[in-house]
Amino acid sequence: MKRLLITGAAGGLGRVARKRLAHLAPTLRITDIVDLGPANANEEVVQADLADPKAVMDLVEGCDGIVHLGGISTEQSFSKILDGNIIGVRNLYEAARAHGQPRIFFAGSNHVVGFYRQDEPVDLSSPVRPDGIYGVSKCFGEALARFYYEKVGQESAIVRIGSCFEKPTDYRMLSTWLSYNDFVRLVERVFDVPWLGCPTVWGVSNNSRAWWSNDAVRYLGWHPKDSADGYEAEVRANNWPSADHPLARLQGGNNTADPLSRD
Amino acid sequence: MKRLLITGAAGGLGRVARKRLAHLAPTLRITDIVDLGPANANEEVVQADLADPKAVMDLVEGCDGIVHLGGISTEQSFSKILDGNIIGVRNLYEAARAHGQPRIFFAGSNHVVGFYRQDEPVDLSSPVRPDGIYGVSKCFGEALARFYYEKVGQESAIVRIGSCFEKPTDYRMLSTWLSYNDFVRLVERVFDVPWLGCPTVWGVSNNSRAWWSNDAVRYLGWHPKDSADGYEAEVRANNWPSADHPLARLQGGNNTADPLSRD
Amino acid sequence: MKRLLITGAAGGLGRVARKRLAHLAPTLRITDIVDLGPANANEEVVQADLADPKAVMDLVEGCDGIVHLGGISTEQSFSKILDGNIIGVRNLYEAARAHGQPRIFFAGSNHVVGFYRQDEPVDLSSPVRPDGIYGVSKCFGEALARFYYEKVGQESAIVRIGSCFEKPTDYRMLSTWLSYNDFVRLVERVFDVPWLGCPTVWGVSNNSRAWWSNDAVRYLGWHPKDSADGYEAEVRANNWPSADHPLARLQGGNNTADPLSRD
Amino acid sequence: MKRLLITGAAGGLGRVARKRLAHLAPTLRITDIVDLGPANANEEVVQADLADPKAVMDLVEGCDGIVHLGGISTEQSFSKILDGNIIGVRNLYEAARAHGQPRIFFAGSNHVVGFYRQDEPVDLSSPVRPDGIYGVSKCFGEALARFYYEKVGQESAIVRIGSCFEKPTDYRMLSTWLSYNDFVRLVERVFDVPWLGCPTVWGVSNNSRAWWSNDAVRYLGWHPKDSADGYEAEVRANNWPSADHPLARLQGGNNTADPLSRD
Amino acid sequence: MKRLLITGAAGGLGRVARKRLAHLAPTLRITDIVDLGPANANEEVVQADLADPKAVMDLVEGCDGIVHLGGISTEQSFSKILDGNIIGVRNLYEAARAHGQPRIFFAGSNHVVGFYRQDEPVDLSSPVRPDGIYGVSKCFGEALARFYYEKVGQESAIVRIGSCFEKPTDYRMLSTWLSYNDFVRLVERVFDVPWLGCPTVWGVSNNSRAWWSNDAVRYLGWHPKDSADGYEAEVRANNWPSADHPLARLQGGNNTADPLSRD
Amino acid sequence: MKRLLITGAAGGLGRVARKRLAHLAPTLRITDIVDLGPANANEEVVQADLADPKAVMDLVEGCDGIVHLGGISTEQSFSKILDGNIIGVRNLYEAARAHGQPRIFFAGSNHVVGFYRQDEPVDLSSPVRPDGIYGVSKCFGEALARFYYEKVGQESAIVRIGSCFEKPTDYRMLSTWLSYNDFVRLVERVFDVPWLGCPTVWGVSNNSRAWWSNDAVRYLGWHPKDSADGYEAEVRANNWPSADHPLARLQGGNNTADPLSRD
Repeated sequence: MKRLLITGAAGGLGRVARKRLAHLAPTLRITDIVDLGPANANEEVVQADLADPKAVMDLVEGCDGIVHLGGISTEQSFSKILDGNIIGVRNLYEAARAHGQPRIFFAGSNHVVGFYRQDEPVDLSSPVRPDGIYGVSKCFGEALARFYYEKVGQESAIVRIGSCFEKPTDYRMLSTWLSYNDFVRLVERVFDVPWLGCPTVWGVSNNSRAWWSNDAVRYLGWHPKDSADGYEAEVRANNWPSADHPLARLQGGNNTADPLSRD
Repeated sequence: MKRLLITGAAGGLGRVARKRLAHLAPTLRITDIVDLGPANANEEVVQADLADPKAVMDLVEGCDGIVHLGGISTEQSFSKILDGNIIGVRNLYEAARAHGQPRIFFAGSNHVVGFYRQDEPVDLSSPVRPDGIYGVSKCFGEALARFYYEKVGQESAIVRIGSCFEKPTDYRMLSTWLSYNDFVRLVERVFDVPWLGCPTVWGVSNNSRAWWSNDAVRYLGWHPKDSADGYEAEVRANNWPSADHPLARLQGGNNTADPLSRD
Repeated sequence: MKRLLITGAAGGLGRVARKRLAHLAPTLRITDIVDLGPANANEEVVQADLADPKAVMDLVEGCDGIVHLGGISTEQSFSKILDGNIIGVRNLYEAARAHGQPRIFFAGSNHVVGFYRQDEPVDLSSPVRPDGIYGVSKCFGEALARFYYEKVGQESAIVRIGSCFEKPTDYRMLSTWLSYNDFVRLVERVFDVPWLGCPTVWGVSNNSRAWWSNDAVRYLGWHPKDSADGYEAEVRANNWPSADHPLARLQGGNNTADPLSRD
Repeated sequence: MKRLLITGAAGGLGRVARKRLAHLAPTLRITDIVDLGPANANEEVVQADLADPKAVMDLVEGCDGIVHLGGISTEQSFSKILDGNIIGVRNLYEAARAHGQPRIFFAGSNHVVGFYRQDEPVDLSSPVRPDGIYGVSKCFGEALARFYYEKVGQESAIVRIGSCFEKPTDYRMLSTWLSYNDFVRLVERVFDVPWLGCPTVWGVSNNSRAWWSNDAVRYLGWHPKDSADGYEAEVRANNWPSADHPLARLQGGNNTADPLSRD
Repeated sequence: MKRLLITGAAGGLGRVARKRLAHLAPTLRITDIVDLGPANANEEVVQADLADPKAVMDLVEGCDGIVHLGGISTEQSFSKILDGNIIGVRNLYEAARAHGQPRIFFAGSNHVVGFYRQDEPVDLSSPVRPDGIYGVSKCFGEALARFYYEKVGQESAIVRIGSCFEKPTDYRMLSTWLSYNDFVRLVERVFDVPWLGCPTVWGVSNNSRAWWSNDAVRYLGWHPKDSADGYEAEVRANNWPSADHPLARLQGGNNTADPLSRD
Repeated sequence: MKRLLITGAAGGLGRVARKRLAHLAPTLRITDIVDLGPANANEEVVQADLADPKAVMDLVEGCDGIVHLGGISTEQSFSKILDGNIIGVRNLYEAARAHGQPRIFFAGSNHVVGFYRQDEPVDLSSPVRPDGIYGVSKCFGEALARFYYEKVGQESAIVRIGSCFEKPTDYRMLSTWLSYNDFVRLVERVFDVPWLGCPTVWGVSNNSRAWWSNDAVRYLGWHPKDSADGYEAEVRANNWPSADHPLARLQGGNNTADPLSRD
């Protein structure tokens, strides 16, 4: 790649991506709706709103790879999710279509299946059961990515990210944690494999308690090496839920118990 | 039911519903974004934009059943689909939540799986493959309906309508046709069954060529009685496609070949 | 067959069997724990307790076919179910083993899967979810029948009977009804097919609302011809449940709501 | 079609095809390794050996449809099966490739799965279990047909014919019978559907006892209308097997008990 | 936990449990039908017959966890199995219901599927094929546990134990061995996980030859660490079966060849 | 074993087998259609044509195990494949039948499913999609092996070999490589397991990118220990394909792009 676009670069995972993905291309173009600070060497910094189609066209032009972390990544008001995760994603794919179809790493979410119980095996044949309007918006994104693949051959990796943080800090994350290192290795693979197609990948480290399997995408050559297992004692000491806690029974954890936003 | 709301009542299927569903409730409240003409006896006519949350709140108040045919039902510009099928649907479900959770007949579409081939058996375990931005918006609607069911117990029938017209007029409709009579019977069943849950139903008549099976929802007691078979000779005479015609190979038919809208 | 044994012949279904199965063999040997009245021509009447192994040995001797309707067929005290459906069934299979392995029609029950919802497709790969101690005892009987087949080749038809009554009288029976005629035809088939093996059959008529499919046992040549559909208006008039009624949501119906017996 | 080639036209099914398929094309080219008698009007009669590649090239030239009934259709010596069903089939597909890829109706056989029991549901995901060297040769033919489809887009219907005779004459045929009328209708459909692909079809009439389902190929619009059911009394009177007869337990029937040919 | 009940504490596995599970609760209440010797510190020793409902009520009172190893664990007379594994298990669940529903580790058995071949993948969708009256009684226990979960929310882990011994000593145990350490870790997990539900777990160590997978219950966080692999040379030296030995072909091994008990 | 026959011993894999399998039997009988050089100690060297039934009878006589690597192992002319892989395989199985049914290691090929995409999970329920006439011939061989197992109990391991070479040398082989050591270990297992049956095994090392799973044949106790992973850097340096290279998308790799042989 010559130029890799990273959207949402001011977010939690975006800041990791900015720091850790620089080796993937001579130029990183990083963007967010908020200020990103000064550009590092090899960086192009663009403040932009994904909901603005013209701005997104400009963002994508000249890029041959996109790591799409932008938009909203938690349960928030519908209007914000609409802008970021519905309109924004559509803008992105239209811009990709207009500019040579750079491969896209699409940050989806496990919250598309959050209302399954933790003892229910879920795979790609399981109908979605989103646990919030955020999860619903990610269903939209997945469907859009698939559509552009079938329609014009636009390649995307749809990555249903578990919990991508420094370390797992609660019971559920012992199952869902994705380490930063494993995230980086997955991005590398998505852009490295000669032919990608449009796979759906569970973004989860090699946790013994992980509910999901990536056996269906072994062709990607991604092998998460980190595991939440080593953090179990720490989690156990601080934060072991009771049987009726939302973290204990449903895959979506606390999201399943959040109040439904009215705005 | 005391009052049944029919959205999209000025559309093709909406006009059928207006005429044919009056027996379901003493009062029909019918609505559309365009003029609906004068109210018939037992009708309340409300012109409203589904994209307007306040208007939708008012629409739903006092209704104990909803036949949601509103929004956009063909491939159109994204902005129209956004208003009708994304914002509009979310407005509808929020209004339902605020007003006693009337049961909802949600007019979804077979175009959520339009990029499967006609020789591929598709069922509820098949990941979506929408064939246009319209189909993508219906994936959003399905996900939203499911979410409200899991979250607050809102009941919906998600009906993946095939081709609901007077009669089948092309080769593909020999597989996908839903007669008006069968549509009416399905609506009846959705509001008649004591417990509905949130089933996904293929809206298709008893056509021998139908690709989809409703065996999973036999508890609804819906038995389509019409069949496209009797129209085969007529279709054959007028409109038999060649092997490479979009009607001949993919389930979505012409939609799969439509140009992607840019606006 | 020369002599067909019918157990439980004083019960509801047993009386039907006594009347309607006489054509299957020159001699019917009928038995129950209660008095059966005088023998008809061609009948041998034996009052016996299935829990008594010696009595069951005598019952089975000389028979070349068994329709096993005996034991308990509703939710009752554990001690009664133990005698009739655990000890009694084991006695029967031991007696069959000792006496030439007459083919057995085993009256099982849909209540082995009663805790599935009515919108959940259930088939032979679905783990059991019995809805009472009665259903649990039928799981025992199914397992025992399978064991004798694998171990010594004893043939049985395990028939998960729905609701075998004169006619369907409530909402759930529109799905689960088995007519007497279809019951008789099924018994005929079980004894008529040259090789039976050990199939599991759903004992249900050709009801449009039936939840279960017998596609896996089409080799039996059984085609239920009756349907609950014609009784729908009658049921609707008398007995349409509310959404939260036990008849409306779970396959086991009222059994799922029965108090658990303590004795 | 302008010219339809029928191979194996002197065989049992071939003679039916010769008589009954004339309406499909102005010219029938009929061929067999044995004498076919004089040509009827609209017939081209060619005596030819399918094992001779040059002869087959000539046969196929100018044809725009092929009903391939040629080769060996019963358990015979390996050398005959090799000539007819291995070399002959490969010659046919090579000739089709050289001459515009006319659509092919390939007469396969249920004997590719003959060693399944009659109570085992078999579908297209079931690995083959051929019951003779004849069945093995049909596995070869199926694989070859699929290969030509994947490689060069050659369309074929792989038809696993059950028992295509005047009427069912034994117990097993109550399950496997394909009537001549239904055979003819299937051929019509194979050449009528705009896009065929490379489906596998169970060639069986609408018998209640049929073990196989064509639900996966409903797009073909083929609806067998005959049924073996009406012949059950006749079969029962003449020819009801014992439990250990090869007709009673395995899908392949007598073939499973045939001695293995040594030549 | 405050008090953990261990039933069957005088049996082979019971003695291991008595020694190795003391860390799980301040008080162990241990019971068996035979004498257990003097109580260790922190132990309450109760000799009791599981077939006696009153005794079992007393046993369970005051306990907040149960490791149920009691009853019969090999093929024995039906009367013994009836007392221990049918009546005894029902007594236990009734007592649990009466006393606050302590979580139950239910020692089930692989012999519920013993008549599958070793090359047949078996999972929770596989119908039972018990290999003895012992296996049949475990099917009863599984069904009962499931029923109490559905009915009143009683949590159980149904553990289909392979071969839990000091070390694997024959060919089959290279597949089925469960080490004592892995058994202990599994018990720990069953009582440690916040929400358990009613999972079915294969009680087998991390043997390369293991036929069963616990992928469906990864949420338990159980990771067997031992393996039979290291014992292969020893087994091979002493005890390698011939092809027709019962250890070599069916999952249930010798049980499948045991004579059927008559008492 | 007393005498192990290795066919195709002059081929690439055959030479490995000759060197590495000598420990399996006191006598190796090695054969090929070409000269094999002088016999080593403990070797019997026989030059023979597999297409000659008499020669094959002589070859097999006195052997109690067969590693069948003979025939054609690449895409070649049909006539060569016919002789080696159709006639030759049938000769081998007939000879085995005549001479005590020695167990057979049958070298099949992944090219029976070569037209699946690399992102499509393929298992034993996937219908074949051979990628050449070579792959078609291996379908024939698999079907024949299965037939002899069902018919006369002849045991075979059908091994769908990936790419068995010194080391992986291109992108696809990172998925498909089978090391020589793992090949040897697999042969050992096939002859070591007491009961073999007729399993289908994917012949692939423990590569992280492997598309196929051997979970269904864990009873064999085969644990590939090598992995292509260590060669990834080397492959990457020399030979990373573009997205449209045949190595990048279909499982069969270059075979899928080979011209179809005409002779």
